[in-house]
Amino acid sequence: MRSIAVTLVAAVYMCPAMGQKPAPIASAQVVQEVRDYRTDHEDRIVRELAEFLAIPNVASDTPNIQRNAEHLVEMLEARGIETHLLPITGRGPVVFGKLIAPEASRTVIFYAHYDGQPVDAAAWTDGTPFEPVLRSDAIEVGGKRIPFLENSAKHTAVYQDDWRIYARSASDDKSPIVGLLAALDAMRAKQIPLQVNLKVIFEGEEEAGSTNLAHTLELHKNLLAGDLLITADGPVHQSGRQLVFFGNRGDIGLDVTVYGPVRALHSGHYGNWAPNPAMELSRLLASMKDADGRILIDGYYDDVTPLSDLERKALAEMPVNDADLERELGIAKPEGAGKKLVELLEEPSLNIRGLSSAYVGEHAQNVVPDKAEASIDARLVKGENPHKKFEQIAAFIKKQGYFVMDREPTMEERRTHALIAKVIDQGGYRASRTAMDLPVSKALVKVVEEATGDDTVIAPTLGGSVPMYIFEDLGLPWIGVPIVNYDNHQHSSDENLRLGHLWRGMEIYAAILADLNW
Amino acid sequence: MRSIAVTLVAAVYMCPAMGQKPAPIASAQVVQEVRDYRTDHEDRIVRELAEFLAIPNVASDTPNIQRNAEHLVEMLEARGIETHLLPITGRGPVVFGKLIAPEASRTVIFYAHYDGQPVDAAAWTDGTPFEPVLRSDAIEVGGKRIPFLENSAKHTAVYQDDWRIYARSASDDKSPIVGLLAALDAMRAKQIPLQVNLKVIFEGEEEAGSTNLAHTLELHKNLLAGDLLITADGPVHQSGRQLVFFGNRGDIGLDVTVYGPVRALHSGHYGNWAPNPAMELSRLLASMKDADGRILIDGYYDDVTPLSDLERKALAEMPVNDADLERELGIAKPEGAGKKLVELLEEPSLNIRGLSSAYVGEHAQNVVPDKAEASIDARLVKGENPHKKFEQIAAFIKKQGYFVMDREPTMEERRTHALIAKVIDQGGYRASRTAMDLPVSKALVKVVEEATGDDTVIAPTLGGSVPMYIFEDLGLPWIGVPIVNYDNHQHSSDENLRLGHLWRGMEIYAAILADLNW
Repeated sequence: MRSIAVTLVAAVYMCPAMGQKPAPIASAQVVQEVRDYRTDHEDRIVRELAEFLAIPNVASDTPNIQRNAEHLVEMLEARGIETHLLPITGRGPVVFGKLIAPEASRTVIFYAHYDGQPVDAAAWTDGTPFEPVLRSDAIEVGGKRIPFLENSAKHTAVYQDDWRIYARSASDDKSPIVGLLAALDAMRAKQIPLQVNLKVIFEGEEEAGSTNLAHTLELHKNLLAGDLLITADGPVHQSGRQLVFFGNRGDIGLDVTVYGPVRALHSGHYGNWAPNPAMELSRLLASMKDADGRILIDGYYDDVTPLSDLERKALAEMPVNDADLERELGIAKPEGAGKKLVELLEEPSLNIRGLSSAYVGEHAQNVVPDKAEASIDARLVKGENPHKKFEQIAAFIKKQGYFVMDREPTMEERRTHALIAKVIDQGGYRASRTAMDLPVSKALVKVVEEATGDDTVIAPTLGGSVPMYIFEDLGLPWIGVPIVNYDNHQHSSDENLRLGHLWRGMEIYAAILADLNW
Repeated sequence: MRSIAVTLVAAVYMCPAMGQKPAPIASAQVVQEVRDYRTDHEDRIVRELAEFLAIPNVASDTPNIQRNAEHLVEMLEARGIETHLLPITGRGPVVFGKLIAPEASRTVIFYAHYDGQPVDAAAWTDGTPFEPVLRSDAIEVGGKRIPFLENSAKHTAVYQDDWRIYARSASDDKSPIVGLLAALDAMRAKQIPLQVNLKVIFEGEEEAGSTNLAHTLELHKNLLAGDLLITADGPVHQSGRQLVFFGNRGDIGLDVTVYGPVRALHSGHYGNWAPNPAMELSRLLASMKDADGRILIDGYYDDVTPLSDLERKALAEMPVNDADLERELGIAKPEGAGKKLVELLEEPSLNIRGLSSAYVGEHAQNVVPDKAEASIDARLVKGENPHKKFEQIAAFIKKQGYFVMDREPTMEERRTHALIAKVIDQGGYRASRTAMDLPVSKALVKVVEEATGDDTVIAPTLGGSVPMYIFEDLGLPWIGVPIVNYDNHQHSSDENLRLGHLWRGMEIYAAILADLNW
């Protein structure tokens, strides 16, 4: 199949009214025109997405991640977007693009990533991660595999809103990229002028920790002048409603290993005498939180920047769907002593993401293990310093009687200290939050509210982490406008996109480009 | 290499003095003659052991465990031992052997097992579990890999006492089997008559819980007439001295799984709200023991049968080498609030043998795990019932607020119960103890003391577990005479045998066969 990008190559974006600032077109009208365009062009949009998804995109797979970047360049240049690759050694480049609206005074930068989470192909249902499959609904509710459509001479292909495309990055983040470009196509076709200059930053190693992003952007700071950054990463609200969010949590990771005898010992000959590291680790972890989930580490909540009145009000207005989530996830009693999920996401967290010591189940051996390991992540909220957070946790472990080190203990250290913990700092980054009362914040909310008929959830903070602090450091206010369905299996097998969400996303992105002004 | 067993096939054991009861030869003399024989035949003995170790012997690996049994039959028949396989469906058979000394009035049965613990090949140092490796010393003190020796026309191979053979079951229990058969070879070569009839019971699923042993022996009770059972399982005393023990602990295993959300959740979007099963498991395990290692489960110590005066006296006379062990094992402070190791082994234990939840280290994912699992074993002492012990632990888990089940919870159960624990009873068996003042007990101690020059530790109970209750139920007194080094990595990776211990073991087993009478 010929690349859809190539067929568009010559169609440079034309500003309909060169030389004078066009009047903004109201969001409601933009939405209608984009919808008209889309219903005639679903075949082309879905085909462009499916082609893009078919290129494997794990960040560490350098040859394929480069292919993704080259394909993206084709897609951008087909829209007349000036494109630069900002190279990163051994990784996919940052794909930077720029489309100038001659009379615009503001510049909006869209951020998304084109790499995806690592895949375990065997875990996918009736398919593989990089062969996109169309289904009549979500697998969980019996969605059946159906063929992709094509326009014929007589019929225009029509995709149902509930149909889903299954592939790695179908939601995270290739669809928002395709949605943005399709929005530009619709605007050109309907002669809707850009109200702002558009820049794009498409990253190729977000799922590998964005290790090189800050440095790379710093090197090319001259390209990044702008007034607002919109991140397209993440899902909409669990209610299915559109989401605009103004912050996200930071994140640090650490690994804690505690030690027993220098070698695993026979549990019969030494059980009751040799200290058991799995028991010590259990005791240590159990001391970190109370039964309600309150973290007992000294100073853990001290640095939290309180929410502003406006943020508190937004939080109070967010829909409460905790009961639905509990039901869906099989949870009888959440942590948090009765606080709502959205409130808890405004607090720092401490989460055990994994435990390991010797063997369990049929592989269990009758031993006192030689060590036990826990992997922990902590989410940070605005005001907290990642390094200080790590130090608080390490200090707490010390206070529990542990000799804390950052390497394996020597034999002499084992003989000297009854409790030893190796605590490895895996780094991380801070939270970031844009004020909701900035003129640009209010203007963006207004556009999205209009584009969705007031059906938008406004959140002060997202629970997850995106390295938005990098843009904050560049002096850019940023706001999250994700478009994909929340039940998209992001990061897991059977990742998918509900097409109705892509259609709505196109409309919202077009409304922003056509009508955002402050 | 041609099997060593086959080369011996025709050499049937000959009683040197048929038709009249031979006078016993003093143990000290037996030891000297066996030592003479051994120094000339180390090549053959080591080769027979290495061949046997090269056959993988995990109990659940049915084809290979059968190969072990067949190989054992060859080894026994090569000594003229009448052999029967007592079959067990889906497992290795019990290998039974009988060698009659025409004028003997007593029968001694040797018990050992030919299966080994499960293996994790990746955890072995510079080798794999079923490719025996010879080293110049223990790995811990810098032992280097050296080639196996072979006799040449001019030189007899000489193995140093400190050299070690590394392989699964190098100590537990293939060496005692080879040691017993080599002792028979030495007696035949030196024309030392058997003072007792010899029977052997070599089991193929001890490390899998001896589930079928009692039933299988019951079916073949007619074969088992005897006056004493000697178990060869286990290591000698940690002081390096020979050990005779009169009891062992029982053992039960259980697996505990606790549950979080029905699927692993993004720790950013749900951390602080979704209950974390790794934290719940830590809290549960930590509640089972106090900081000194005292078990807090109701009734845990209630059923313990106190030691007799004789047993208490033997316990008091055992060497105390706790400080040496602490030093060797890198332990700054043992459990037990100051009690000695040998005292603690007379109490029931509770040991976490493994922990698992999601992933740690570089494989960690930023999730709230969906479940966490602990594997536990409890050692029982005389007087305790295995099923009641399991019930005590399960009742304690209930008392901590858990809904306890023996299967995966349904979605509705997850929605109903905040704390759910799946507790799987893996079965086990009770402790067993032979009276130290029986005539046979005193006679055996006398022979072993003489064979070792009074260098023997007499223990009322071993910390480990061997299913000796089965023989107790058959009316057989039993006594433990292990021969392998205590630092043998039994049940773990890098299991090994120190050759000097095999040599001494041959001498002791020969002395028993030649000189035991009561």
